Amino acid sequence: MKFMTGVNKKETLEIRDLLSGSYEGTAVKVNGAVHTIRDMGEVAFVVLRKREGLLQCVFEEGKTKFNLKDLKEEATVEVEGVVKSEERAPNGFEIRLAAIRVLSQPAEPMPIAVSKWKLSTSLEANLNNRALALRNVRERAKFRIQEGVVRGFRDFLYGQGFTEIHTPKIGAKSAEGGANLFRLEYFHRPAVLQQSPQFYKQMMVGVFDRVFETAPVFRAEKHNTKRHLNEYTSLDFEMGYIDSFEDIMAMETGFLQYMTELLENEYAKELKILGVTLPNVAQIPTVRFDEAKQKVAEKYHRQIRNPYDLEPEEEALIGQYFKEECGADFVFVTHYPSKKRPFYAMDDPADPTYTLSFDLLYQGLEITTGGQRIHDYYMLMEKMEKRGMEAEGMEQYLSVFKHGMPPHGGLGIGLERLTMKLIGEENVRETTLFPRDLSRLEP
Amino acid sequence: MKFMTGVNKKETLEIRDLLSGSYEGTAVKVNGAVHTIRDMGEVAFVVLRKREGLLQCVFEEGKTKFNLKDLKEEATVEVEGVVKSEERAPNGFEIRLAAIRVLSQPAEPMPIAVSKWKLSTSLEANLNNRALALRNVRERAKFRIQEGVVRGFRDFLYGQGFTEIHTPKIGAKSAEGGANLFRLEYFHRPAVLQQSPQFYKQMMVGVFDRVFETAPVFRAEKHNTKRHLNEYTSLDFEMGYIDSFEDIMAMETGFLQYMTELLENEYAKELKILGVTLPNVAQIPTVRFDEAKQKVAEKYHRQIRNPYDLEPEEEALIGQYFKEECGADFVFVTHYPSKKRPFYAMDDPADPTYTLSFDLLYQGLEITTGGQRIHDYYMLMEKMEKRGMEAEGMEQYLSVFKHGMPPHGGLGIGLERLTMKLIGEENVRETTLFPRDLSRLEP
Repeated sequence: MKFMTGVNKKETLEIRDLLSGSYEGTAVKVNGAVHTIRDMGEVAFVVLRKREGLLQCVFEEGKTKFNLKDLKEEATVEVEGVVKSEERAPNGFEIRLAAIRVLSQPAEPMPIAVSKWKLSTSLEANLNNRALALRNVRERAKFRIQEGVVRGFRDFLYGQGFTEIHTPKIGAKSAEGGANLFRLEYFHRPAVLQQSPQFYKQMMVGVFDRVFETAPVFRAEKHNTKRHLNEYTSLDFEMGYIDSFEDIMAMETGFLQYMTELLENEYAKELKILGVTLPNVAQIPTVRFDEAKQKVAEKYHRQIRNPYDLEPEEEALIGQYFKEECGADFVFVTHYPSKKRPFYAMDDPADPTYTLSFDLLYQGLEITTGGQRIHDYYMLMEKMEKRGMEAEGMEQYLSVFKHGMPPHGGLGIGLERLTMKLIGEENVRETTLFPRDLSRLEP
Repeated sequence: MKFMTGVNKKETLEIRDLLSGSYEGTAVKVNGAVHTIRDMGEVAFVVLRKREGLLQCVFEEGKTKFNLKDLKEEATVEVEGVVKSEERAPNGFEIRLAAIRVLSQPAEPMPIAVSKWKLSTSLEANLNNRALALRNVRERAKFRIQEGVVRGFRDFLYGQGFTEIHTPKIGAKSAEGGANLFRLEYFHRPAVLQQSPQFYKQMMVGVFDRVFETAPVFRAEKHNTKRHLNEYTSLDFEMGYIDSFEDIMAMETGFLQYMTELLENEYAKELKILGVTLPNVAQIPTVRFDEAKQKVAEKYHRQIRNPYDLEPEEEALIGQYFKEECGADFVFVTHYPSKKRPFYAMDDPADPTYTLSFDLLYQGLEITTGGQRIHDYYMLMEKMEKRGMEAEGMEQYLSVFKHGMPPHGGLGIGLERLTMKLIGEENVRETTLFPRDLSRLEP
């Protein structure tokens, strides 16, 4: 009988293996995709694209058992050769090729030049050829950074006693009401795609105290801007037994500190490829919504048009203000007006026209909305009634309050927006593998 | 100006704090939900439910500043008291209460007795009161185990050079063809919910070599069984530069080894609560599909009705066979018939009526489907043509093969099924927070 006993050892080496051992002068096997071929006559540089970076191989006429004419860019190969230090090569070494074995051949040349350092296509062309464009080293680095952000979120929260949950995306009703919902038929019943795990994560606070989820959310918003997506990854957490809504902001600050440290330690290569300088998150200023409006109006001579909402331009100016005043990239704007927040937001007892809520702005862009929620059943019923809301269809959500819930609150972070800001991009599609927007349903 | 500087220190202690320090005889503050009150006259035991377990508090008439009559089960409280060793109490200590502060009061008594050790409701009643039923200590432990499974999957794969990806769930077309798809309207265009990230993860092999995703998938299957869900969490990976499809099974074996070790080390409490003995995954037998059918037919005197498919009963018997023959809980069944696998499955060059594919059975239940995929453009086009498939709408997927792809393969694991088997449950709804099935769209 044959058995599987664990991961198979590979004969081929990865870049990290080659960097960790002393392979100088040793014959090795590596594999990769032919990223580019520079033919100089008697020698040629064959650069392999591997998952950890580029690897320079030197083809020498007569010494390498292969006809260079048979090698195409984007072929995948396994090569044999001797490792030699070469400070001009990526990672400081190259491989003098003895043999090349072709694993697969492309059928056609690439429609876009992915081996250039910076992709020179328009974003539109990039997205139309997405699966190919991402082979560009800078393009793919963006999603390695994104991995670090999600990983940092989860690892930090595991350490803080949070439990990870998986809540359904198809539902009978959504957390935030009827607008902007994608609708579908579920075995002859009307259903929607969840625009937030809000109700579920609150319900689970009564079970696990602290929960988080990293999952897709769906918003049928007809916005066509650089910062909106119709499907995105939401990093959500919800925590019970808070002393104040500031506990939530403090927890998010802790996450940002943990995450930027993780990026520095484990994603340094990608940060370098993208030329990213990480933001300072040692301390994040907070400002009340009404004060922020006032400050910006005064400093930038701007009239306040709507005292109950922040226009995107005002958010940008608040970002600018705190950058100028205290060098901050982030600012928590607190105490949003009650009428602009959902029914479950906890009103400020000191002035119930405002809520114990916040947005986190990153260089003037909202990347988080959060706050304390109402935990008292009667208070919740009263607020729903005031807003003319029906309890019908919300029985399960309401039942957890009827049967005891601790003071709690939480937040949602847009992963693609946060990644975009971290790496200094201007369009959220740049940091979405396969964006979904008003016009884009493929690839 | 006010700043956030990181996680707020809490005055209240968690169980792990109390176990790690020496608090004997010390006054402490803790919070929690009142899980149960046992009134013995002059003293009462107030058991708090905290995220890490139960905590016994002792209420003493005259010594505790509080009227016990004002305390209700499922109230949330913050209490003060002195820590005393007590071997009969959970975790070996209790708290002699000095004061109780009520944080929130329930409006009504619980409809189900969650404080019982084992919930005595039917599964139906459990699911109808899901958010409350999960407050039961055994119920919630199942989802802590589930967390360990997902966490093990990700951490193991990070260590093996995989990159985590997030692919869209709304699409124009799905990976596996037209049947069993939930359909929706996407801004006046027909769209579907993805039943698998298959196409996307393959496309990303050309970018990152090795990728994984842990995300919901959607299947509009009209099965109403103990093992089917219409929305579930799929643990998917796909890896390039494989030497053979056995590399994929070897990687899965490595994951199972890593994951069971993680559970042993970090989820021991939950394993104990559920009385779980983890399976032996040091070695997992493999058997060809046709041989497995033959062996089972011989040993259990069963006629082979359909040589191209495994009936659930046959799967169960294969599980039984390998348990009896070599004490194995898992078995890889390999070389499934080509006609039963999707077009992208790599046929076995030795006999193209079979594929280089496998299922992993866990005690006779399929928890994984995987295999090597076709990486050659012409081979893929030929197989599609043979099956009468159109390339229309699949241009993006096909383009990655046109432009070079390494030999590769991967798999998908059903998280809820794997968790169910690990903890010895019989119905996959037991290990789904909020199941979606033919009749259940809420809560």
